[in-house]
Order: sequence, then C-alpha cells, then structure tokens
Amino acid sequence: MLIVADENIPLLDAFFAGFGEIRRYPGRSIDAECVKDADVLLVRSVTQVDRQLLEGSRVRFVGTCTIGTDHLALDYFAEAGIHWSSAPGCNARGVVDYVLGSLLTLAELDGENLAERVYGVVGAGQVGERLVRVLHGLGWKVLVCDPPRQAAEGGDFVSLETLLEQCDVISLHTPLQRQGAHATWHLLGSEQLARLRPGAWLINASRGPVVDNLALRDLLLARQDVHAVLDVWEREPEVDLELADLCTLATPHIAGYSLDGKQRGTAQIYQAFCDWRGEEAQVQLADLLPGPALAQIDLNASSDPAWALATVCRAVYDPRRDDADFRRSLSEDPVAQRATFDLLRKHYPQRREIEGLAVRVRGESAQLAQMVSALGGVVV
Amino acid sequence: MLIVADENIPLLDAFFAGFGEIRRYPGRSIDAECVKDADVLLVRSVTQVDRQLLEGSRVRFVGTCTIGTDHLALDYFAEAGIHWSSAPGCNARGVVDYVLGSLLTLAELDGENLAERVYGVVGAGQVGERLVRVLHGLGWKVLVCDPPRQAAEGGDFVSLETLLEQCDVISLHTPLQRQGAHATWHLLGSEQLARLRPGAWLINASRGPVVDNLALRDLLLARQDVHAVLDVWEREPEVDLELADLCTLATPHIAGYSLDGKQRGTAQIYQAFCDWRGEEAQVQLADLLPGPALAQIDLNASSDPAWALATVCRAVYDPRRDDADFRRSLSEDPVAQRATFDLLRKHYPQRREIEGLAVRVRGESAQLAQMVSALGGVVV
Ligand SMILES: NC(=O)c1ccc[n+]([C@@H]2O[C@H](COP(=O)([O-])OP(=O)(O)OC[C@H]3O[C@@H](n4cnc5c(N)ncnc54)[C@H](O)[C@@H]3O)[C@@H](O)[C@H]2O)c1
Ligand SMILES: NC(=O)c1ccc[n+]([C@@H]2O[C@H](COP(=O)([O-])OP(=O)(O)OC[C@H]3O[C@@H](n4cnc5c(N)ncnc54)[C@H](O)[C@@H]3O)[C@@H](O)[C@H]2O)c1
Repeated sequence: MLIVADENIPLLDAFFAGFGEIRRYPGRSIDAECVKDADVLLVRSVTQVDRQLLEGSRVRFVGTCTIGTDHLALDYFAEAGIHWSSAPGCNARGVVDYVLGSLLTLAELDGENLAERVYGVVGAGQVGERLVRVLHGLGWKVLVCDPPRQAAEGGDFVSLETLLEQCDVISLHTPLQRQGAHATWHLLGSEQLARLRPGAWLINASRGPVVDNLALRDLLLARQDVHAVLDVWEREPEVDLELADLCTLATPHIAGYSLDGKQRGTAQIYQAFCDWRGEEAQVQLADLLPGPALAQIDLNASSDPAWALATVCRAVYDPRRDDADFRRSLSEDPVAQRATFDLLRKHYPQRREIEGLAVRVRGESAQLAQMVSALGGVVV
Repeated sequence: MLIVADENIPLLDAFFAGFGEIRRYPGRSIDAECVKDADVLLVRSVTQVDRQLLEGSRVRFVGTCTIGTDHLALDYFAEAGIHWSSAPGCNARGVVDYVLGSLLTLAELDGENLAERVYGVVGAGQVGERLVRVLHGLGWKVLVCDPPRQAAEGGDFVSLETLLEQCDVISLHTPLQRQGAHATWHLLGSEQLARLRPGAWLINASRGPVVDNLALRDLLLARQDVHAVLDVWEREPEVDLELADLCTLATPHIAGYSLDGKQRGTAQIYQAFCDWRGEEAQVQLADLLPGPALAQIDLNASSDPAWALATVCRAVYDPRRDDADFRRSLSEDPVAQRATFDLLRKHYPQRREIEGLAVRVRGESAQLAQMVSALGGVVV
C-alpha cells in the first residue's frame, strides 16, 4: 500500500509505517502526479483535495489531521466512493486550557473569585462541551447557548440574550457561519456587546469574525470595566493593533496548539483508517506521547482550593507567555505582521495539556480531589 | 519569668511559653507600666524601646523580630547592661524569591534568556549575598558592588560605575544611609540612571530613596527599553502614581513577606535568648512551620531547564499577583493611598519560600538537580 502524506503530520511512521510505504511531500506541493499511485492520502489544511487532485488516482481513503474540512471536496468523495476522516475535537482540550489560563489571569487582575462568577458558553460542541464539563466539575455556575443543539436535543440551553444578561464571563466556541438560521458572523455586534454586564470578561478563541472587531474596539475604548481576551482576529493574520492593545490577553490563534492535540489529530485519522479497514487499532497515542516535563504535582490537603487550581493550571500552561510573544511581534507593517503571525504559530513552543496531569493530594481532601478530576487531572 | 511581647509576633507560645508567663499587648501601646515587672521584652518595629520605656524596669533582654534596629536605643542598652537581639536576614530569602519572580516576568515580556544576561547586585549583605549565591549557582554571570565589604575584605567587587556599564540587570540591596562615605540616598540618581544599558532591568526592593524616584520617572518616560520593578517607594506609604504606572511590576514593600520569614524572626530571637541564657535551644522552626501547600514537584529529567526554573519558582511565588493587588489599590487620594498600602501589607496572603521546596527529578539530569539546589530546593 502506498501512503502519500503531508510531511508536517506528526507520528506518521509510528501510526502508518505498518501499512506500507509512506511518501512525504510539503503539503502545498501535493499534486495529481504525487497521488496517482497512492491508496491513502493524509493531509493538513493546506492541501486542497478535490476531483482535480484525485480523479484517476487509486486513492480510496483521505484523512485530514484537522478539525476543519473546508479543503476537502466531500461531494466528490461521496460520488467517487472515497472514504475520508477528519479529526474533530483533536485540539479542543488545548482551547479549554487556554480559557482556564485566561480566567486565572483576569481573576488576578480584577481580584475576583472565579467560583463566584457566572459563566456563559456560546457553542457547546467539541470545545464548548468540554469547557462546560470542566466548569461544572469545578462547581461553577454555567449557562449554555447553542440553538442548533437546542433545536435537535432540547434540554438546558438559554438564548444569547439571557446569556449576555446573566453571565459575567462569555466564552465563544461556535463555528464561523456567514449565513443561515444559525449564522455566527458578528454574533457579537455592537448591540450585543453593549449588553455586557459591568465587569464582564469576553473570550474569543473560536473564529475572529464571530465578534465584530471594530465594535469591540469601540466598546473597550468606552468601558474600562470590560476585559477582552482574543485568540482569533477578524482579518487574521492581520491584526488591528489598537484592538490588540485594548485586549487584556492577545494571542495568534494558538489556543488549541498543544502537542497532545497535534498528535491526537494523527491518532484520530489512524483510528478512522483502522475502522474503515475493519482492523483493530494496534498503536495507542498514550504510548507515543513523550512524558510531560511536569511529571507530577503534590498538593497538601489543607491548601486553598483557589490557589491549588491556579497552581495546577498555570504549571501546565499560562497564556501570558503567548500574549507577551505576540505583543512583541506586533508591527505597523501589515506584511511583516502577517508573516510573524504565521511564524509564531509555526514555531510554537511545545505545550502539554492539563488533562492527564498527575496530581497527588497529601492527606484527605475531597474538595481538592474533585477539583483535580474536574480539570481532567489524574489523582495518584 | 515575665515576658512582655507585641501581640503580632507569631509563634510566641511555641518558642517562649516554656520560660514563664507571656503578656501580650498591641505594639504601639507597650509603655513603662506594661514592662515594669518584665524580664524580657519582645517587640516589632512599632515599639520605641529606650531609656524612657525601660528605666526602672527589670528588663534584661530585648528581642526585636525585625531586621532593623532603628527603634532600639542601643547606646542606652549598652550603658544599662541590657542584652538585645534582632533578626538579621530573617526575611532575606523572601526578597530573593521576589527578585527571581520579577526576572521571570521581565524575561517573558522581553523574550530574553535569563542565562544570557549579566547581573549586577548592589549591596551584598543578608539579602544581596543570598541572591548572589543563587544566581551563581544557576551558572549566571554576576557582578557585585559593595564598597563597605570591599574595604573590609577586599575580594571580587566592582564599582557602581563598572556595574552600570556591564550589567543588564541591576538589583539594589543596600541599607538606606543618608550620610557618610557609603551613603546610599539617591545612589541611583539621574546621572547613574542615564548610564543604564539598552534594555536594562532595574529592581529595587531595598529602600525607596536609594533610587531618585523623580529621576526614574523621567527615565522611564524617555526610555521604553528599560524595565523597572519597585517594591519600595521614596515617600511610601505614599506612591507616585505616574511612576507606578511606568513600572513593569509595582508592589507595596512586600518582597520579604513570606510566612517562613515572619516565623524565622521569632526563631532567631529565641535562639539569641537561649544563647544569652547559656541554654540549648529546644524548639526548631522547621517543626513549627506548617507543611507548604505545594508539597512537591516532579520534573522529567528531559525537561527544558529554563521552563523548569520558571515553573518551580512561579509555583511557589509569582509577584504578578501582588502587582495586580497593588495596582487595583492605587488611589489619587493620598490618605486612601497611605491606608491601603499599609492594609495590603497587613493582610498579605500567606506565602512560602522556594528554599526547602521538594523537587524530584525523574531520571538523570545533573543540570536540573543543580538548578534545584541553586534555588535552595531539596532534590528528593
Ligand atoms: N483557537 C483555536 O486554536 C481553536 C482550536 C479549535 C477550535 N477552534 C474553533 O472553535 C470553534 C468551536 O470548535 P469545535 O471543534 O468545538 O466545533 P463544533 O462544531 O464541535 O462545535 C460548535 C458548536 O457551536 C454550535 N453553534 C452553531 N451555531 C451556533 C450559534 N449561532 N450560536 C451558538 N452555538 C452555535 C453548534 O451547534 C456546535 O455545538 C470553531 O470555530 C473552531 O474553528 C479554535
Ligand atoms: N523589600 C523588603 O521587603 C525588604 C526585606 C528585607 C530587607 N529589605 C531591605 O533590603 C536592604 C538590604 O537588607 P539586608 O538585610 O541585606 O541588609 P544588610 O545590612 O545585611 O546588607 C546591606 C549590604 O549593603 C552594603 N552597602 C552599604 N552601603 C553600600 C553602598 N553605598 N553601596 C553598595 N553596598 C553598600 C553593606 O556593606 C552590606 O553588605 C535593606 O535596605 C533592607 O531594609 C527590604
């Protein structure tokens, strides 16, 4: 079997070497000639996979190690009987860690107790649902707005209006939809932003245009009490420098960039590939991930829960580092700005996830054990 | 034996109950009547201990749980044959942790590698000498300026000029001396400040007037490349709001405020008291200090040393919290400002020291073990 793959996909050999020959190419230079004799094509978001690329080839399985599928011609795949898989949710946990780190920063700046705030999560899919579970696990009050899910499942959802009215923290996790009943383009425009509660925090790590960036800039100029955290930008890789300056945390679309997430992307298409072939998966991601630099934290059972939460989360990831790197990189020159935005993402430092962190509680503390479990840590 | 003591001295009973009766008073209300029948007087900096207070009393030992002795009439003590002890260096380690935390913040903001900077320590007494030992232990380049010690001991010291010329980081640890050959009042005035290297960092956690605060304000207005960290202020508890705004970190004279340091103050006068009585000390501070909230950190031997350093130090103490609390408290109204400065100090959250932190390195790494030892951690 011949497997053609983007050279930037991690762990290719570990997962796929057993199936045949692997030929690697830069993602942007994968063309019809490369894939002609391939049985399997593994890509990232930079390769356009359509009729033009695949017609006449032997490719029967396309895997993309990304959550998005905009670069795949799914209609053509269906027509041509080509199986495919993406990696939904592979980097969702990284975004949750980013949100947690942002909350800790904002709480420190405002002197707020996170346990006393009301959280509003907009979009409860792979990312949002994981976030809701963590926040609930921590015992915090959470409202969720997800009209598509509400329409499909019913259940405990609220409208965006209610959420804006009742929540101190708004975290956005919808896709970008420009049209339709559930369009999310400028979901938060000037009207919605004007309704933010006093002292509200707004976090956007979904897609830039979900928030009207000009309206947000005006709001932040007018209201000192509001904090905004932006990981995504309306015209990224271009960045509105004035808006970035007004944001409390500003980062270059790296919320989900954990090592675990990147490798999980490969693991997910490997699993889908095995399922498609009707084979049992032989390789486990857990066996391949390097041991985390932070092997374990031991907390005294008597330690303050808020302190413990902050210490555990920040020891794994603190977005203030990425904020500092990003601010240093900002440039008046849009060409330079676009380039550094991409460079920061390309050379992103290795980062691990809170999920799976080993935490030992010395002595008995149900509260601390619950906190660690809620974060996805492993109480050892 | 009757012991009269400031009610705010920690661990009084643990250390002194075995010697007799302890009577507690608010420090400011200890008067001749209170101490008349006392054999021992234990104070903090708020009690003026002089002839007026002690003459005619039975007091033969005065202990102050502070590093300073300005409030003790030492000449009178000598004349009256009263023994005394202070607690030199009791809170020195806290200041070292503060400096380390500040360095980590500045390195993150500027994207600098701490191992590549040249450090200048001005004043190598209890605090400065400990800091020098830590920085040396980390393998970093350090120059030391301490003319009094240089005059007394000779050795490897440099002038303030050389230090300003060669160092990227200047950390001040001198006493405040208004007069004499080694006066430190405005030791860094406009002339010295103008000589700071490009991208220099200035840290003052000694005494406010060691730096000319107006000159520093002008410098920071003119030079975006310089970072200043101030824990002490020329007219504290009043604060120059414009200067605070220009500082990268600003805190209310809390650099040395660890729990360990406060309790160590009592331990040191207890030790001096036992020495004076010719008795063996029975009580050990280590047995009294509560277990730290952070009981242990386990690092993988392969982890990046710069990451490990930051993670270990910050897990114990990160001055950004105190900076945030201080900035929120700043007020245009000088009366309110003075009050909150003191309140922040009085209600300072419990903080532990890096010294003694248990760190396990999983696998072999001489470099990590050396880093942990240099910080004063215990490799377990
Ligand atoms: N910043 C990063 O690094 C990063 C990483 C991963 C994902 N993302 C982005 O985060 C977003 C969420 O990703 P995901 O994987 O959870 O997607 P998902 O498709 O799993 O979930 C999206 C959810 O949003 C809901 N939704 C759709 N329209 C809505 C509306 N108008 N109002 C409220 N909810 C609505 C959907 O019903 C769904 O439950 C996406 O935009 C994705 O591109 C960013
Ligand atoms: N911010 C805080 O919370 C905090 C805590 C502890 C100490 N301090 C302050 O830190 C400073 C140092 O404290 P310490 O306990 O190390 O004092 P120390 O007396 O032990 O050491 C001071 C050192 O400075 C040297 N020195 C004197 N004049 C000098 C000059 N002109 N140039 C260079 N060096 C000179 C002395 O020779 C001595 O070695 C003091 O001002 C103290 O009040 C502040």
